[in-house]
Amino acid sequence: MRQRDPKELFDRACHGDRPSLARAISYIERGEKQGDEIASFAFRSHRNAYTVGITGAPGAGKSTLTSSIIEVIRGHGEEIGVIAIDPSSPFSGGAILGDRVRMQEHALDPGVYIRSMATRGHLGGLSVAVPEAARLLGAVGFPSVIIETVGVGQVEVEIAREADTTVVVVNPGWGDAVQANKAGLMEIADVFIINKADRPGVRETRRDLEGMLDLSNLGDYRPPIVETVAADKKGCEEAWDAICSHRDYAKRSGLTDKRRSTRTRNELSRILEAMISNKVDLLLKNKGTLEMLDSMDAGTIDPRTLANLLLAAVT
Amino acid sequence: MRQRDPKELFDRACHGDRPSLARAISYIERGEKQGDEIASFAFRSHRNAYTVGITGAPGAGKSTLTSSIIEVIRGHGEEIGVIAIDPSSPFSGGAILGDRVRMQEHALDPGVYIRSMATRGHLGGLSVAVPEAARLLGAVGFPSVIIETVGVGQVEVEIAREADTTVVVVNPGWGDAVQANKAGLMEIADVFIINKADRPGVRETRRDLEGMLDLSNLGDYRPPIVETVAADKKGCEEAWDAICSHRDYAKRSGLTDKRRSTRTRNELSRILEAMISNKVDLLLKNKGTLEMLDSMDAGTIDPRTLANLLLAAVT
Repeated sequence: MRQRDPKELFDRACHGDRPSLARAISYIERGEKQGDEIASFAFRSHRNAYTVGITGAPGAGKSTLTSSIIEVIRGHGEEIGVIAIDPSSPFSGGAILGDRVRMQEHALDPGVYIRSMATRGHLGGLSVAVPEAARLLGAVGFPSVIIETVGVGQVEVEIAREADTTVVVVNPGWGDAVQANKAGLMEIADVFIINKADRPGVRETRRDLEGMLDLSNLGDYRPPIVETVAADKKGCEEAWDAICSHRDYAKRSGLTDKRRSTRTRNELSRILEAMISNKVDLLLKNKGTLEMLDSMDAGTIDPRTLANLLLAAVT
Repeated sequence: MRQRDPKELFDRACHGDRPSLARAISYIERGEKQGDEIASFAFRSHRNAYTVGITGAPGAGKSTLTSSIIEVIRGHGEEIGVIAIDPSSPFSGGAILGDRVRMQEHALDPGVYIRSMATRGHLGGLSVAVPEAARLLGAVGFPSVIIETVGVGQVEVEIAREADTTVVVVNPGWGDAVQANKAGLMEIADVFIINKADRPGVRETRRDLEGMLDLSNLGDYRPPIVETVAADKKGCEEAWDAICSHRDYAKRSGLTDKRRSTRTRNELSRILEAMISNKVDLLLKNKGTLEMLDSMDAGTIDPRTLANLLLAAVT
């Protein structure tokens, strides 16, 4: 495919052209100029998808759960977009591939759009690229977008917590709920799902979660705990119901607007920092700077004084 | 103690006044203006301490080892500075306190200066404050400074790897060497120490380390592996010998100059990024900006366009 005009690409994607949508997301993922323009068009379209972040420890069954929830959503006749955050860890490659393959049961359904996103040189990384891509999916017409994280890295948790509804997936067994608490997942959960609930220890895990919720400073909303066996498609209708209940509560209470505002402001900070970092990198490669770096090696100018000089040069 | 002039404080510290040295490091730790000035004086003094970074998993016995190595150094009649990086984790508080108490055997020795450093609002954090404090210890006359990390967090490993010599401490037992490899410690080690070498599994751990070294792309220097039982002060003379051999090799081969140059350049980047981040934060609180943020919430301007506008305002 040849290089395309961003406006043309955006328009085609809005008219349902999937190859154009895929290419537009790739531009966003790679942080290319066309991607920036497409992200701006999407933002100004005022068509926002409802976003659901699904997070939890590796192996909790997030992909299987997502796949089963997609089936529930399709059963209601709604279209759905999915972004799978893939931090491209060389270690988890196999597992990711397996999960993606499992999700391929929806590959031929035109009402489902599944996309993996990795860090590919985007300024600000996935924490900027994913919300931009989610916004694009909304702009082209998807009413809802699921953002599924592979692990519980800092960036992934941050992205999941900025969704309209954040789902935390745990498994039965001693300590899993406690681990989720330690990883800071308790405070970001709007809905808890105990997946693989056909295994022993469900009651203890539920008790642990309830206990920790009792200790939390909850307002007028208490995150529900839903049990699923996603591999057998059990409990997924209830899981989606719980998610939609939070969506309705959040809209009614103004929480959705508040979160979207926070999300956009965080995005702005990240974009600014990335742009500035870029400027610093350029500055450090500048010929005049290289000479000053030599003076620093020689001990005649210290890093802080040099930083002030360089900063004065760009600001 | 009243507020002091940075030059006066620096001069007093150089003349052996320990309360002045302590206060100067506190200024550096808190990122105060006086600290910046003191760091500049130290840099321009051209008196560099030889720095040894000691890292390894929590519980490996790094503090006990450091304490025993201090004894060896003192036995040679040399003075020594120690910076213990303490990321102030609420979880490890007890262990840290215990370790610090153990190191107090040197508390009354005027030839030893031990200082814990935590993140206290320094712009750029410990990765800027620790090298600045180490440089100050060099400037006031310590020929060597040990930088001991509490854990193996990203910042701690980064600081340890930027020392003139980096020591990685492991324990005997299946998998400890493999864990060190996974945590990225193999590639940064100039000297390996198998501490608690009176426990079973020393031979296997040594074999694992040798095997991994065989697979590494080593130049003309192969990191030695030293066995210690630091609690019984066994092997610590050999450990210090191995460290000094690396020091001599690094000086001879030009590695020391190269590492110091890299370290200072990294410091410059971190200082620049911190300064710019600061500018961005101020900018976001500006009255004019607040109005633009409202436009962003209303969807009339997107984050990227706004970022460009704001950046144009400060650069």
